[in-house]
Amino acid sequence: MRFITFVKDNIESIGVLTEDSNLILDLSNTKELNHYGNMLNFIKNCKDETIGLINHYLCKANDSKLFVKKEDVKLISPIPTPLRNIICLGLNYYDHALESQKFKGNSFTLPEAPVYFSKMASNIIASEEAIKSHQELTNQLDYEVELAVIIGKEGSNILKERAEEYIFGYSILNDITARDLQKKHTQWLKGKSLDTFSIMGPCITHKSSIPFPVHLNIQSSVNGEIRQNSNTSKLIFDIPTIISDLSQGVTLRAGDIIATGTPAGVGMGFQPPRFLMAGDEVICSIEKIGSITNTVI
Amino acid sequence: MRFITFVKDNIESIGVLTEDSNLILDLSNTKELNHYGNMLNFIKNCKDETIGLINHYLCKANDSKLFVKKEDVKLISPIPTPLRNIICLGLNYYDHALESQKFKGNSFTLPEAPVYFSKMASNIIASEEAIKSHQELTNQLDYEVELAVIIGKEGSNILKERAEEYIFGYSILNDITARDLQKKHTQWLKGKSLDTFSIMGPCITHKSSIPFPVHLNIQSSVNGEIRQNSNTSKLIFDIPTIISDLSQGVTLRAGDIIATGTPAGVGMGFQPPRFLMAGDEVICSIEKIGSITNTVI
Repeated sequence: MRFITFVKDNIESIGVLTEDSNLILDLSNTKELNHYGNMLNFIKNCKDETIGLINHYLCKANDSKLFVKKEDVKLISPIPTPLRNIICLGLNYYDHALESQKFKGNSFTLPEAPVYFSKMASNIIASEEAIKSHQELTNQLDYEVELAVIIGKEGSNILKERAEEYIFGYSILNDITARDLQKKHTQWLKGKSLDTFSIMGPCITHKSSIPFPVHLNIQSSVNGEIRQNSNTSKLIFDIPTIISDLSQGVTLRAGDIIATGTPAGVGMGFQPPRFLMAGDEVICSIEKIGSITNTVI
Repeated sequence: MRFITFVKDNIESIGVLTEDSNLILDLSNTKELNHYGNMLNFIKNCKDETIGLINHYLCKANDSKLFVKKEDVKLISPIPTPLRNIICLGLNYYDHALESQKFKGNSFTLPEAPVYFSKMASNIIASEEAIKSHQELTNQLDYEVELAVIIGKEGSNILKERAEEYIFGYSILNDITARDLQKKHTQWLKGKSLDTFSIMGPCITHKSSIPFPVHLNIQSSVNGEIRQNSNTSKLIFDIPTIISDLSQGVTLRAGDIIATGTPAGVGMGFQPPRFLMAGDEVICSIEKIGSITNTVI
């Protein structure tokens, strides 16, 4: 079950893709599910019965009053305006932790605890929207494909064993980064937060569609050349560990976005580095979620 | 002009303190200013005329239909639920940058660029609310008094000379920090974001009441003993520099909170360190804004 946010006739609505992705169940066309307004409010109020009801409606794909054609609407990011900053993990795949340090001349160390930082986003952009190169500010523009976990209910001090209960679903995040700004300001906030640096989509796949623990192939390519190619089973700190550790003393909220880190193959991992330039097309893909395609301008 | 958020009969309202602080102009009692709902919406829509109108109303302090007594309401944080994470600067006073490094054995370095990080806060707590000690997670609980700048209108690539135009006003932030978690996770997000670690208040003083550049005495005390005592004129990166630098490539939004850094005298600056313990009372004060008092439980 893949949730999307779309715009039709200048109105933002939430919907669910049919299996073949050609049609969208427009929740505002249903009797019982037309009051959520936006995805954050839907996530906060979604219950097991809600999912049951959506499954019921998805079987009525020949009822044209309920569905819209995907080609007739514009998909935007499933959560265009986040609740607060996106929570991210750094150095959470072994091979990426390695590539991040190999040209620094230091001895290699793995993080002993999850490295949490955040991304500010005035709005999260969608697939097909442009990445601004910000060339007056950076010449080290980089890509990072990541599995994003969308929190489904408020909680703190969550046990690992109960982590899945707090998940709504999963999406793809391209954590665009200005490496030079990331280094210059020592803490990473600014280098991760330029406008258009947060891309999420194409949908949020509900957790009921993805077996837990989450083992999904994850890839990125630049201009058709595969750069990152891994599996989320290789996370150093896995999803239950992240949710449990992060929520110790910190209340997570329904709609929070946690980006779980990126595997090896980012631009700065090459020698010489292969940073993004205007005209480059980046595609980030994760199994069972889909892919997001963005071009640098 | 000092804006506050208060609760009366379980209803959250915004208001303005009279000069003597005994009365509050309840904006919901006025004809023209009763539609803002909350402080974030007020800040976003506040115009010069709005300020003029409030000044007009403040002269009618004997009209009991407009005003409520401060003693009859509960003040909460002026922005109880922030738009997104609080943006903070680290190491932005010379003497604090020094104390942060003096026991590390490294040679002393000042930051070459502003060090930006963020604090997550499910809600920002107010003066008189309790700071949770989180003693199962940290035994290095620390205080940091900071001048918070509240952004008044959306903007990016802001010129230093025009920075003041983008400010709504100023408040006091106590940036509570778990030093051990700050170090353990290397990036500072988690150590800065435990529940009750963001305290702001007692009011937002409008920029029209504070001469620019902002030179205000700033102090903190623990159990009556002064610990931090400085002036915001001593910021390494001053307010115009911060707003200009941060907004390069990053769209700031009305209601954004930027905490400008803390002067020397925090608990970790002492040898041996003097961290907060249950029962300790911390008071943070800034001239022309007031003070916030919180006790550790």
